Amino acid sequence: MLSVDEALQQVLARAKAKPPTLCPLGQTLGLVLAEDISSDVDSPPHDKSVVDGYAVIAADLAAGPAELEILEEVTAGAVPTRALARGSAIRIMTGAPIPSGADAVVMVEQTQSLNSRNPLGRVRIATQRVTPGQNIMRRAASMTRGDLVLRAGVTIRSVEIGVLAEVGRTEVRAVGRPTLAVLPTGNELVSPGETPAAGQIRNSNGPILLAAARTAGAVVVDLGIARDDRVQLRDLIARGLESDILVISGGVSAGVLDLVPGVLAELGVRQIFHKIQLKPGKPLWFGSLASAAGERFVFGLPGNPVSSLVCFELFVRPLIGRLAGCDNTALEELAAPLAIDYTHRGDRPTYHPARLSTIDNRTLIEPLRWRGSGDLRTLVEANALACFPPGERAFRAGETIRVLRLP
Amino acid sequence: MLSVDEALQQVLARAKAKPPTLCPLGQTLGLVLAEDISSDVDSPPHDKSVVDGYAVIAADLAAGPAELEILEEVTAGAVPTRALARGSAIRIMTGAPIPSGADAVVMVEQTQSLNSRNPLGRVRIATQRVTPGQNIMRRAASMTRGDLVLRAGVTIRSVEIGVLAEVGRTEVRAVGRPTLAVLPTGNELVSPGETPAAGQIRNSNGPILLAAARTAGAVVVDLGIARDDRVQLRDLIARGLESDILVISGGVSAGVLDLVPGVLAELGVRQIFHKIQLKPGKPLWFGSLASAAGERFVFGLPGNPVSSLVCFELFVRPLIGRLAGCDNTALEELAAPLAIDYTHRGDRPTYHPARLSTIDNRTLIEPLRWRGSGDLRTLVEANALACFPPGERAFRAGETIRVLRLP
Repeated sequence: MLSVDEALQQVLARAKAKPPTLCPLGQTLGLVLAEDISSDVDSPPHDKSVVDGYAVIAADLAAGPAELEILEEVTAGAVPTRALARGSAIRIMTGAPIPSGADAVVMVEQTQSLNSRNPLGRVRIATQRVTPGQNIMRRAASMTRGDLVLRAGVTIRSVEIGVLAEVGRTEVRAVGRPTLAVLPTGNELVSPGETPAAGQIRNSNGPILLAAARTAGAVVVDLGIARDDRVQLRDLIARGLESDILVISGGVSAGVLDLVPGVLAELGVRQIFHKIQLKPGKPLWFGSLASAAGERFVFGLPGNPVSSLVCFELFVRPLIGRLAGCDNTALEELAAPLAIDYTHRGDRPTYHPARLSTIDNRTLIEPLRWRGSGDLRTLVEANALACFPPGERAFRAGETIRVLRLP
Repeated sequence: MLSVDEALQQVLARAKAKPPTLCPLGQTLGLVLAEDISSDVDSPPHDKSVVDGYAVIAADLAAGPAELEILEEVTAGAVPTRALARGSAIRIMTGAPIPSGADAVVMVEQTQSLNSRNPLGRVRIATQRVTPGQNIMRRAASMTRGDLVLRAGVTIRSVEIGVLAEVGRTEVRAVGRPTLAVLPTGNELVSPGETPAAGQIRNSNGPILLAAARTAGAVVVDLGIARDDRVQLRDLIARGLESDILVISGGVSAGVLDLVPGVLAELGVRQIFHKIQLKPGKPLWFGSLASAAGERFVFGLPGNPVSSLVCFELFVRPLIGRLAGCDNTALEELAAPLAIDYTHRGDRPTYHPARLSTIDNRTLIEPLRWRGSGDLRTLVEANALACFPPGERAFRAGETIRVLRLP
């Protein structure tokens, strides 16, 4: 049986970023940029004032406070029409171009207009010291026309959207979101709106997996519940193969009604692995299909919700990230000391639901009292997985173990 | 002038969670639950098998491997019709109810069917040891009917959606997402699709703030660009006051065309503070309006994009969180050693764009070479803010400073 790391390698071996599409800027948040972006402008486009105040010639104020004649007022969006000569000043707003001849700006708070009825007239510059260049941001200080300002491969956050707007890109090429279809299987499942009869339970896996896939950045397709019926199952799986990823839950362990692997084979999906060294999640099935529309990836997750969620986070989430064009797609890994004594026993590497908490600047990990892989309720307390090697060992509180943070 | 902490207190003082609304389960991801949730079922609903195999009486196997008569097969979703007697076994699937009389389940991998043509017949149980209770999860081990399973106030992740599905909730009361309108102001602004003329720049603040607000969980309204025109400004601000939060960028510093505070006052918005001890972001304006539809909150952010984004993350994000019903809404704070020597000087507490990186398990913070508050391009490298106290001081590489992680 493959280890978790070997299985993840096989999952990612055939996965590459989806082809780029041209997206309106407002729809790119969270996507990966698929082209290098150059600036079509200098930023700022001119030497600009970074405060509201007066553009001056520093030499006029070398001896301390002085009175200057106001030549004009330049508001943001306007351009100066006059050049400064010795003894004069121009009223200027934040962002406005520096008039020719000026070499500094004095903040309005350090000045006093000497003609209250007329914005022009004379102004007293009250500051003791004016340095050439002060309060001026030089043309192209942030970016020069032609500069490469964003590289293909970055994830587009709000700041990147701002840069794209600044350089005039209303559309950009970005990697599309992967699509992911979810198919829970089993005659025992009824929908959450129904009351289960004897032997039945409500379908919680479908809603969990749809929500987890949305959280991981996929566009989801809800295929409903598949019964243990070969014809219906084949139809639903064929529809699922229209998505980049098909996640089936249940139907891949050793039960006699576990029809899933046979139907997948019929539809041309090639098994890559089945069963791995993992607890919970040993029965994990993975396969792929080379289709005209691109490689399709199929996961058969164990039917119980905790195993299903652990397999999702360890294998499906990184695949979604890889198809979305992200380099680093795995869960955040850290080392943290145990909050309690804890005895682990198991024949496989175990990813145990656990709670990370930070108290007094110290982050501790506490494995939860987990009542087996069907116990979804305990997972509500979990925000991490505590990783234990196979075997039996009593860990002491304070001992450092490996932890994966859940999103 | 208020400190950053005092200003944040004032922003949050009047803010409370929005009234709950009834949401379909599939639309609750990321919302805060607004009711306590009890289970309407036992989970599991019956003693159930956690493996595919044979339900047996452990005492039949006390002496080691044995052959048993198979009475029937219980698939998932079905219920047993027979009770076990000594010397017999029932074939059982994962999740199926344990038949009366059985006290253990043996995995199918540890058995050998002795009649290949007929699933019934006899089975050889090959395992050396069978313990009463093995591979059985008891009725209600995860939850008992009537148990409180989720408390009002939790944020709904995929696991919570699973629990809600399990207890039959297709709709739940949850706190609605706050709405947030964005209004950049200034005659110098043109839309990203236009080529700026002399004195003009493209509107990058609007797209940044819309994206940052979506990232923080708000439903956004794009009001377009307001010119320095009192009538149009009044109309756009009135529309903005239909949202829970109105974020105006520009128009609140000391420029003569800064009409925003006057128009806000006319519309009944009461100023709570203007200017705070913060760099970048000193001109921040904040006010509120008690309207019939609930309290409205108005921010006037400085017009340059870096100040604007810092103010958004420090003040607007926590307000969005509070209105969405979250307890803990601030940016994650940590202490990290400086990656480089760094001299800070400034008359106000400074939140400097910086990069957190983890190398060899050590997380270091590097203040970026930031070319002033209009320098959006450098922010692309930033994933954190490095916090420096006022004054001038040379910090040495390795010295620990306060850091806020950007989302």
